[in-house]
Amino acid sequence: MDEFDSIARLFRPLAEGAPEALGLLDDAALLPGRPGYELVVTTDTMVEGVHFLKGDPPELVARKLLRVNLSDLAAKAADPYGYLLTAAWPKGWDEPRRAAFARGLADDQATFGLKLFGGDTVSTPGPLSLGATLFGWVQAGRMVRRAGARVGDLLYVSGTIGDGRLGLAAAQGVFEGSAEDRAYLAGRYRLPEPRLGLRDALARYATAAADVSDGLLADAGRIAEASDVGVEIDLDRLPLSAAARRSGATLVDLATGGDDYEVVCSVRPDLAAAFEGEAKASGLPVAWIGRVTEGEGVSPRLEGQPVPTARTGWRHG
Amino acid sequence: MDEFDSIARLFRPLAEGAPEALGLLDDAALLPGRPGYELVVTTDTMVEGVHFLKGDPPELVARKLLRVNLSDLAAKAADPYGYLLTAAWPKGWDEPRRAAFARGLADDQATFGLKLFGGDTVSTPGPLSLGATLFGWVQAGRMVRRAGARVGDLLYVSGTIGDGRLGLAAAQGVFEGSAEDRAYLAGRYRLPEPRLGLRDALARYATAAADVSDGLLADAGRIAEASDVGVEIDLDRLPLSAAARRSGATLVDLATGGDDYEVVCSVRPDLAAAFEGEAKASGLPVAWIGRVTEGEGVSPRLEGQPVPTARTGWRHG
Repeated sequence: MDEFDSIARLFRPLAEGAPEALGLLDDAALLPGRPGYELVVTTDTMVEGVHFLKGDPPELVARKLLRVNLSDLAAKAADPYGYLLTAAWPKGWDEPRRAAFARGLADDQATFGLKLFGGDTVSTPGPLSLGATLFGWVQAGRMVRRAGARVGDLLYVSGTIGDGRLGLAAAQGVFEGSAEDRAYLAGRYRLPEPRLGLRDALARYATAAADVSDGLLADAGRIAEASDVGVEIDLDRLPLSAAARRSGATLVDLATGGDDYEVVCSVRPDLAAAFEGEAKASGLPVAWIGRVTEGEGVSPRLEGQPVPTARTGWRHG
Repeated sequence: MDEFDSIARLFRPLAEGAPEALGLLDDAALLPGRPGYELVVTTDTMVEGVHFLKGDPPELVARKLLRVNLSDLAAKAADPYGYLLTAAWPKGWDEPRRAAFARGLADDQATFGLKLFGGDTVSTPGPLSLGATLFGWVQAGRMVRRAGARVGDLLYVSGTIGDGRLGLAAAQGVFEGSAEDRAYLAGRYRLPEPRLGLRDALARYATAAADVSDGLLADAGRIAEASDVGVEIDLDRLPLSAAARRSGATLVDLATGGDDYEVVCSVRPDLAAAFEGEAKASGLPVAWIGRVTEGEGVSPRLEGQPVPTARTGWRHG
């Protein structure tokens, strides 16, 4: 029954004010319908040593878990609603660490307007394994999908690209650079910023969108696959942070690294200026990086010339 | 991108015919509303070596994963709708084992009318970790909760109690008994039967219900806690399988073992006969095992006398 006590103490406060959670006293959560809306559901799993580092502070791990899922909701133009949590705790994850983890959840629940609806916690002989299933609302028929890009659309990306990969190196202590750059990049890796501020602009203007979690080329490639089109990306146009620019990493490296948690999307060319304007007005400028073409897959370009696939180390699924 | 290929080959067929899944090509699943209904959501995690045995056949592990969650939906009187899958694969879980796992999912999807809506698969240096989040529909306001038991209600349980604990021992090869009993009990542990056939009877007559996953006393205790009442259970009344009766296990052992996946519920005394009749007509007889009282917690009794808590090895949360 220790598990049950721990749930009560640590997690019940996270469900306060959410009738959906039934006080975490039931077998299930209960989600009422919302006329005119649909429920967007996304789930991401994180394993210690694979998706975060063994020594990472529990608060930050908790916040990253919510944020990687919020990033999916942002790309779908969905309003965050609530979540289920699953945790398989190893022996070493004692009460103080679990409490710190719960504090991280509480912080980001407040930041992003989320409530805990339920979940399951178990023990494991392996590394800490975490999962979150997030729910968000969209007006019926208005979710921005990966399928929907049309030939002639322009391709955009939010924020800066490649910081996730460099940030992992920085967090591992193997990034050569100034202390300031290391701190900035490690922060980008440990605590991504879901681009929820772009929701209105995406809902109004994007024909397709995805979050950039596995690398820009991979995720743009999934838009291409789902939309049955090709995508050309001008790597020279990639928006880079000052730290990434100073890093000496190649554009191909930056476009194939994971963990950026930006949004890549396609927009009709006649609406592109309006989209750029609305994104900028929301405080999250977007950069034009390419276009949707006939054909299939992603075609990265440098100085107007195709980059051979062998150089990108990437093939489409 | 191997992960992505593997998803396409193994899991996309499981999502066929489910528009909610968007072909598993998107960042999220999209659940439309259903006027007059609410969505019941439950999630359970299973770790190799904790919730199933290392050598268990992948098909059976997959089916158990769905069934332990379906058992929660059954206790809530919800109609199964669809699910999200999360899997953290260790290195040893190669393509043939993953394919066998997917076959198990397909089998039980067909049996229970479920579709795969989405999920996330990652790799892990630890043991196989699985999670499923199941969705079910209930008519608005009609979910059977843990809260709702009232003083004077009678307590019922479906099926037989204690087979899960004995079945674990049988599956581990440490159960002394006939080959037939060992096979029956191991089967009960490896492949529980979610009591979905009781949905109508529960929806109509139960004031509260829960699934029996952590042991009858523990799960009845959660009804007591959620309902702010006490529960008395006559251990002499426990429905036992012939194999459990032959096992020589004590009634307290059987009432405190996990993995039974039966339904425990409370029913108004004047409706008890009707409930028993409807359950029997649905092919899933229920047994009267106790009553709801003033006070708190679970009070097991033997021959009309309280069983000291120390003997049950169980304390309430």
